[in-house]
Amino acid sequence: MRTVDIIAGKRDNLRLTRDEIRFIVRGYTEGLVPDYQMSALLMAIYFRGMDEEETRALAEEMLYSGEIVDLSDLGKPTVDKHSTGGVGDKTSLVIAPVVAAAGVAVPMISGRALSHSGGTLDKLESIPGFRTDLSLAEFRATLERIGVALIGQTAEIAPADKKLYALRDVTATVACLPLMAASIMSKKMAEGITGLVLDVKTGSGAFLKDQRECEKLARLMIDIARGLGKQCVALVTDMNQPLGRMVGNSLEVIEAFDTLRGRGPEDFTDLCRELSAHMLLLGDAVDTLEEGHNLYDRMIESGAAIEKMGRIIEAQGGNPEVIEYPSMLPGAGYARAVVARQAGYVRAIDTEAIGRASMILGAGRLRLDTRIDYGVGLRIDAKLGDRIEPDSPLATLYFNDATRADEAAGAVEQAYSIGQTEAEPPQLIKAAF
Amino acid sequence: MRTVDIIAGKRDNLRLTRDEIRFIVRGYTEGLVPDYQMSALLMAIYFRGMDEEETRALAEEMLYSGEIVDLSDLGKPTVDKHSTGGVGDKTSLVIAPVVAAAGVAVPMISGRALSHSGGTLDKLESIPGFRTDLSLAEFRATLERIGVALIGQTAEIAPADKKLYALRDVTATVACLPLMAASIMSKKMAEGITGLVLDVKTGSGAFLKDQRECEKLARLMIDIARGLGKQCVALVTDMNQPLGRMVGNSLEVIEAFDTLRGRGPEDFTDLCRELSAHMLLLGDAVDTLEEGHNLYDRMIESGAAIEKMGRIIEAQGGNPEVIEYPSMLPGAGYARAVVARQAGYVRAIDTEAIGRASMILGAGRLRLDTRIDYGVGLRIDAKLGDRIEPDSPLATLYFNDATRADEAAGAVEQAYSIGQTEAEPPQLIKAAF
Repeated sequence: MRTVDIIAGKRDNLRLTRDEIRFIVRGYTEGLVPDYQMSALLMAIYFRGMDEEETRALAEEMLYSGEIVDLSDLGKPTVDKHSTGGVGDKTSLVIAPVVAAAGVAVPMISGRALSHSGGTLDKLESIPGFRTDLSLAEFRATLERIGVALIGQTAEIAPADKKLYALRDVTATVACLPLMAASIMSKKMAEGITGLVLDVKTGSGAFLKDQRECEKLARLMIDIARGLGKQCVALVTDMNQPLGRMVGNSLEVIEAFDTLRGRGPEDFTDLCRELSAHMLLLGDAVDTLEEGHNLYDRMIESGAAIEKMGRIIEAQGGNPEVIEYPSMLPGAGYARAVVARQAGYVRAIDTEAIGRASMILGAGRLRLDTRIDYGVGLRIDAKLGDRIEPDSPLATLYFNDATRADEAAGAVEQAYSIGQTEAEPPQLIKAAF
Repeated sequence: MRTVDIIAGKRDNLRLTRDEIRFIVRGYTEGLVPDYQMSALLMAIYFRGMDEEETRALAEEMLYSGEIVDLSDLGKPTVDKHSTGGVGDKTSLVIAPVVAAAGVAVPMISGRALSHSGGTLDKLESIPGFRTDLSLAEFRATLERIGVALIGQTAEIAPADKKLYALRDVTATVACLPLMAASIMSKKMAEGITGLVLDVKTGSGAFLKDQRECEKLARLMIDIARGLGKQCVALVTDMNQPLGRMVGNSLEVIEAFDTLRGRGPEDFTDLCRELSAHMLLLGDAVDTLEEGHNLYDRMIESGAAIEKMGRIIEAQGGNPEVIEYPSMLPGAGYARAVVARQAGYVRAIDTEAIGRASMILGAGRLRLDTRIDYGVGLRIDAKLGDRIEPDSPLATLYFNDATRADEAAGAVEQAYSIGQTEAEPPQLIKAAF
């Protein structure tokens, strides 16, 4: 088998066989297939696509390039959630403790902030002392003890994906559905889960903005999971505005604590409740989605969820008192409102621009080596459909470096489209598979 | 300017600007743009193509990546011919001495055998002592003295092309018209010529088999030449059977000598006469194509052409007595006829397969490090349209390594299609631009 023939085959719209995909993924992981051939193949895949069978084979070979965690000795269902990334999406920080409190194990391997979107790991690390770099052995021990653990991708998990992702990033081959599906699923399927809930974001703050494309991605991922004998459901959800009110690391942690106490913003609470219900259903804790909703409510109302959050923080090296005293978290020295210039209704929010404004303030990484400022970010004061008057606040910036505030304020102002006719807030759940 | 943005632009069907092409070609030549980004861009170009302006810019930037020979002090027109490669194509060995004998300088930089096709350099090197590795200074001195020199690509000429060609070869991006046109023309335009005749081969022995594609390639190359102020014409010519009778290095040299004495095969003589006439026209030696044909005939009949060949051989280190005594050339120890099994007419010859049979016998390179056996090859006994009887010879193999003869004989037999209806031999010149 020769790599150049495999590239030529995909270029000429032939299907890649399982053997060819295995040859390429193994060869690439071991350094036998060089980057320059892999990138030519990735671009050919970008143009020609991959069918379900090829995508499944790619995901599986990427999965098999590394270690697969075996959690069967926990003796209970293990369920995770994955979001394709958005702005203000702190869902994992709520649903992991809720679902674990209800008795379903949650082995969650998360990512960092990427481009304009936030990352669960960075948010957790805004809690002083919180360690996301547990070894796989510590991960397993924590899961046994408290039924939940939140860590980052280790070197053992899907090394092919790590190498491929870096290559795709510099060769303009990121936005390709089968490559996206295989990348996500090769990591998630290594977690030792029995079920997975996918939250595919669509809209102005999503990486994949078009809803039809999101639905295709959802179907590809479900197909991969089922091929590996895992239960999987996918929701396509709205990302045309930031979720909840807060964008930024410690700001989002505080909003998650509020939500775990039943005092979160409505849209964010609704999404957490829906995703949790699906996880509880996959984890055999309930028999219907409605029972799942009710169980979510009970975990919040009884205090079991916020208590589980304290145990997570404690288990992973943080001080759980941060829940009572959020001022222990990093904060911002300055605040500044961005106000409306005219009266009207919020018709649209360029949510990716809001994410970029948060990055500019220091909450994300403009470059790979940027150090995140955990205390900064912004609060969304006007959401889609809200009535505003001149000088009413659109958003409030929280920052430490005043030199960046003007640029961020300009980006936020630009991001808001104000119209004269009333507008409905968007539907949160667009589709479910 | 970022390479990844340039890749994304081409991927999304945007035109590359001159500045972007310059950035990429310079960066790649200097090692600042890595192979893995270049190969992704090449594959995007494969799918999206390039328009005339982009192709011209690419060829020019590749040309400017190296040295451009200045032959203006010769004080006369300088004309070359380039063929896209075929089987039995020893045309350069005839037309270079003919045209030089007629007073037009011929600075010819040629290539080696590639895949199933022969290479002028390898053929010349079958003459003992013949050096094709003249430095650019020796090249110029030889041109001044005898009006013609035949060398290989030096390191100074279009280094971007050298690097790109190697990368295209292993990333399945060779068969792409704008990349082919830019590659060929970046080398040819560095030769210091005032005019160029292109011989674009079409048919079963050509790299680009389809005639329409060949015509497109011809137009792209002419456009590049004219953009650089060079005169250029292109003929699309038949490669549905080997040219002349001989395939193999010293065998083709002997056939070229015969042709220079007016005793060559008809089809090959016709092509040499036509290409020479175009070169003489571009070189201002004649005013019409008909005068060009007549001048070709005079150079042959007067003995001026074969005498010039002797001077070339002498100037480049060989012994010109080889013309009188061809047995001084490397030869083959064995000969074997491949015969027809049935009566009929030769309807088609898979000419690429004939080229491969010659490679198998040792006349070409199966691998980069293969040493060529200059004495081996084959003689075509039955050409398109010929009437054959059972046991009449199709071709004769000449070889030294008997272990390879069966495989080559099988390939030759397979290459011939024999039918029961008469067939016209193909038209030699298919189109001219």
